[in-house]
Amino acid sequence: MIGSGNLATHLCIELNKNDYKILQVYSRNKRNAKILADKIAADYTDETANINRDADLYIISISDKAVEEVCVKIKENNIISEQIVVHTAGSLDINVLKPFFRNYGVLYPLQTFSKNKTVNFSEIPIFTEGNSKETEAKIMETAMKLSSRVSSISSKQRRNVHISAVFACNFTNHLYSLAADILEQNNISFDIIRPLIKETSEKAMLYMPALVQTGPAVRYDENVINKHLEELKDKNNLQEIYKLMSNSIYEKVKELKN
Amino acid sequence: MIGSGNLATHLCIELNKNDYKILQVYSRNKRNAKILADKIAADYTDETANINRDADLYIISISDKAVEEVCVKIKENNIISEQIVVHTAGSLDINVLKPFFRNYGVLYPLQTFSKNKTVNFSEIPIFTEGNSKETEAKIMETAMKLSSRVSSISSKQRRNVHISAVFACNFTNHLYSLAADILEQNNISFDIIRPLIKETSEKAMLYMPALVQTGPAVRYDENVINKHLEELKDKNNLQEIYKLMSNSIYEKVKELKN
Repeated sequence: MIGSGNLATHLCIELNKNDYKILQVYSRNKRNAKILADKIAADYTDETANINRDADLYIISISDKAVEEVCVKIKENNIISEQIVVHTAGSLDINVLKPFFRNYGVLYPLQTFSKNKTVNFSEIPIFTEGNSKETEAKIMETAMKLSSRVSSISSKQRRNVHISAVFACNFTNHLYSLAADILEQNNISFDIIRPLIKETSEKAMLYMPALVQTGPAVRYDENVINKHLEELKDKNNLQEIYKLMSNSIYEKVKELKN
Repeated sequence: MIGSGNLATHLCIELNKNDYKILQVYSRNKRNAKILADKIAADYTDETANINRDADLYIISISDKAVEEVCVKIKENNIISEQIVVHTAGSLDINVLKPFFRNYGVLYPLQTFSKNKTVNFSEIPIFTEGNSKETEAKIMETAMKLSSRVSSISSKQRRNVHISAVFACNFTNHLYSLAADILEQNNISFDIIRPLIKETSEKAMLYMPALVQTGPAVRYDENVINKHLEELKDKNNLQEIYKLMSNSIYEKVKELKN
């Protein structure tokens, strides 16, 4: 395992559970490498030259911008010959690995990982890609040990899956956070909005979201919208988000009517 | 019950379950009035002059902009004297009822209601307000039959609760819908993102959202962000939302660090 962040940690633990032996954890940060390695009884190193040469599969699970640098060093040290190398990044093309390795691909689990919250990995969609049919098949085999929802998609599709996740997960969580701020400024607990957050996501499990959209923007109810914008007048950022999202909802409603 | 929309329907059914007798449903649309009235064995009318004069409580649950008009007509016809009149709107000040009634207030349930999905009403926060202590107490009494989470707040607080709900529910649902569009354009099923939506909302049940924010905007990872903006280049609306939300996330991260 090249990497020791949230995703690397969850992957190591899951692979370990599913009879994969993680030989070694590499991280630039020795302490983080050790913390993860200790969890799965693996070796660890912070030196690329010391990366274990005997693995069947190398998983690079680090920030997008660090991938190329670590690949350069792995190649310089002649660590990998025929073995498969995958990265786990949603928005990184498969071809970033091409200059460095013979057999390579992608294993991208679509989920938000926090260090302290367990997730049911078997339900997490995993998207794979390989530079050849054979490599792809081997990557899928590994992915299918982790999850029952594995599919092969292109780099462009995966990038769009990642973008959709940014909208549906990262931006959504930020909206929760803005709602919490508004409530706090009015001395109201975030607790009161939790049932609504739950219900909204449960509806998305059953219906296509555009078909169950509610709120003042659906009918572009100017009475309500203008009152809200007035209330947000000293909060530029919130006012701008409010306008943009309301207009976008209304555009979508019109699109659905046509 | 003045009104026959989603909220009016859910309220009638819940009140009915809790031993309240709904005498009559009024709606401008006679057919809608009958549909709701039939569900709760009530009378119905589409004429303000024929609104029943014997109720203890009148609930106005219609669109914000229609409230004043129906109040004018109720007053013209001398329907109500000492009885309590409430509206159910988040962003409508209690004082909109002042010119028309002696005893009045607000009963605002914070939830998103769809016609075909049942919700557990007892968990829904209800916010009340009354023009006098006595009226307020009576409104709270009714609210507490419906839910275990009743609190009294001011019109300004309620407006802000409504705004926070627009962010956490309406805008969030729209983000789900935008994610669905992005996936559809790339021939990928919305199903693959549902586990992520579920996990994101479940995290908000346990933590304050700002503290568990993930995604490229947290570190303002320009590698990823620029790739995403490039991919969205022909979709003005999405690109603008992407930029604004990413900046807002990054601002929040900086705020939390200080």
